[in-house]
Formats: sequence, structure tokens, C-alpha cells
Amino acid sequence: MRAQGLFISVEGIDGSGKSTQARLLAEGLAAAGHDVVVTREPGGAPGAEAIRRLLVEGDPARWSAETEILLFNAARRDHLERTIQPALDRGAVVITDRFADSTRVYQGVARANLRPLVDRLHDLVIGIEPDLTFVIDMDARAALARGLARRSGEDRFEELGLGFQEALRAGFLALAQEYPARVQVIDGTRAPDVIAQDMAARVTAHLR
Amino acid sequence: MRAQGLFISVEGIDGSGKSTQARLLAEGLAAAGHDVVVTREPGGAPGAEAIRRLLVEGDPARWSAETEILLFNAARRDHLERTIQPALDRGAVVITDRFADSTRVYQGVARANLRPLVDRLHDLVIGIEPDLTFVIDMDARAALARGLARRSGEDRFEELGLGFQEALRAGFLALAQEYPARVQVIDGTRAPDVIAQDMAARVTAHLR
Repeated sequence: MRAQGLFISVEGIDGSGKSTQARLLAEGLAAAGHDVVVTREPGGAPGAEAIRRLLVEGDPARWSAETEILLFNAARRDHLERTIQPALDRGAVVITDRFADSTRVYQGVARANLRPLVDRLHDLVIGIEPDLTFVIDMDARAALARGLARRSGEDRFEELGLGFQEALRAGFLALAQEYPARVQVIDGTRAPDVIAQDMAARVTAHLR
Repeated sequence: MRAQGLFISVEGIDGSGKSTQARLLAEGLAAAGHDVVVTREPGGAPGAEAIRRLLVEGDPARWSAETEILLFNAARRDHLERTIQPALDRGAVVITDRFADSTRVYQGVARANLRPLVDRLHDLVIGIEPDLTFVIDMDARAALARGLARRSGEDRFEELGLGFQEALRAGFLALAQEYPARVQVIDGTRAPDVIAQDMAARVTAHLR
């Protein structure tokens, strides 16, 4: 499966500002006349949101890393089928707050060393990659402080502390090395409107 | 993962009497002094039961066959880690009402033609097979009538009618051909106590 349209993911550690930037990018592209769908993971479709609740609620040790990878892929498959692929098929720009790179980093590197399982499952049931991925990068300590300030009860991993956030940050930066044609690192320490302008310019360059 | 203990699955179409036979077999083995765990799929552990609710409640078309396979494997992985493997490790007899063969038949043959995906996922995240599998076999029409008589609201597939039940029955019988050392077909048209004696004798023979 693949089509017209443009598929963009925004990745990064909690508190890096990625949700804000996904929204600002969507607003800018919509103002420029694009058909834009802004979505998120885990979730982004009714079934996938039900799976999200299993993942983010309850005891953080509720699932093993392997079961968690299966649940993330179930939610992603539903999100892909019901939201992402139909939008791409009609030529829309899809901007998702997190996609498969988050699973590569969280379950593949930081929570567990299961990158081979993550990759095999992705190849088997997802297959698609974004055309463009922005990693909003910033100091793990500053991101952690921002994340803790607006706790939603869903941020299970924040309780694991600074060392874990630093491992996540390193994991996202390593993905930019691994997929240089797709993943662009964005300096997330700048003012939100400056970051938004930077990302919009990169999308415009990609569309040309 | 594998250990002492004995791992038995009971399979068959809804209404075939497999849940009753799983319970009777457990009672007989417990009376003979065995440590017995009787369990079921989807479910069999707290997390897996939460995934079960996603699978059996709501619109039957809620999930694609692929998403369903991922959810069944997530539930099975949790069931294996939390219930089956710990019991086998301490030497118990585990009797499960359904296991991976149900996914092979429902998602691999009858609902969708996805057996290669079912097999690859099983190899990747489950790996284990029962030592002994009983397929309780009976006429699809008779099983359907029994199943409809005690509807639980969970029997999504019964609404798909006789042709679907016959495809399921054929799928289970084909598994007995495919795995002759593991899968035994049990004539489910006999009286429940006669079937129970037959199965108990086969388990005793296997244990020798």
C-alpha cells in the first residue's frame, strides 16, 4: 500500500513539544490550501484508541515488552487501515504525532533490547514508512521537566526518570543516522513559532 | 521456553462441547492427583482477558483480520507468560479451551486466507505448541444449534451461519492431518461422560 499524499511523522521524547509542532504544521499546511489530517499514536482511529487505553492505563508493568509490541502493532495496523491510508489515497497530507519510530526507540532500545522483533513485526504487518520524519530534539532534563509539569496520567515512561529519557533521546538521534533520507533532527530548544517555520520550510522543500 | 508439565489444548467449533470436556478432563486429572490448571483463550490472564473484551464485544467488523490476528497474539503472549508457562514450569498439567489452532482455522482459513501471516507471527512471538490437542468434532449443523441455544453474546461467528461453521470444522480436521503426532480428533456426538473417558484414556496413554 502506498499512494499520492504526503505522510509525515513527528517524533521525540515526551515534553519535546512534538504535539504542539504537529498541530502548528497542520495549521500552516491547511492555511496554504492542503487537505491535512493530523493524528496520533497510539490511537488515531476508534479501535486503535481502545487499544491505546489498554497501553496507557493501569500498572506500567501490566504488559511484557513483547506483548506491548504486539499491542502497538495492532493499534498501528488499525490506524493505518482506517485513518492514514484512506487519507493518503485521496492525496491528503497526514501528520502523525508518533509512528513506528517510537516503537523502535521505546521497545527496541530503551525499555527492552527487542529491535529485531520490532523490525520483523513492522515488515510483516505495517510495511509503510513516513515520507518525512521530524525528530524534535532537546535536552532530556528540560523535556522531562516540561512533561512532568503537564502530567496527563498517561506518561508512564516519565516515572522512569532522567536516565531513561536520555536513552530515548539517544535512540531517536540514532534513527536519524540510520534513516538519513527520511529522518530530520529539529532543534527543539528554539521558540515554538521559529521551530514551526523551520519545519514548514522543510516540508515545502520536500514537496518541490 | 518449555519445561516439564503437560500442555493440552481442546479445540473445535462453538457448540462442540469443548469447554465442558476441558472441565471434565481437568476434574478427572485432579482427582487422580495431578496439579491441573484449566484456562481458555482468548483470555486466561488478567491482561489477556482485557484484550478478549476488545475482540468479542462491539461490532464484529470492528477489526480487520490482520488486526485481529495481532490482538489474538498479544492476548496469547500474555496468557503464555502469566498463566501457561509458570504452570508448566512447576510441572502442572495445563488444559486450555482453545490455543493457536483456533487462530490458524478462524483467521488462517475461514474468516481470511491469512495462514502464512498467522504462522509467521506464531513463530515470532509464541513458539510453543501443546503436547496434545483434542479436536472435538461433530456435525456443524448440530453444533450451531447447540451454540445458538446458549448464546452468550460473545459468539460473533455463529451469526455467519452454517457455511462458515462447516469451513471451520473442515479447518480443524485439516489440522489433524497436518499435525498427526499432536492433534487427535474426538467424536463429539457421543455422551459427554463417554467422550470424557475417551480423552482421559488418551492423556493417560500419552503420560506413559
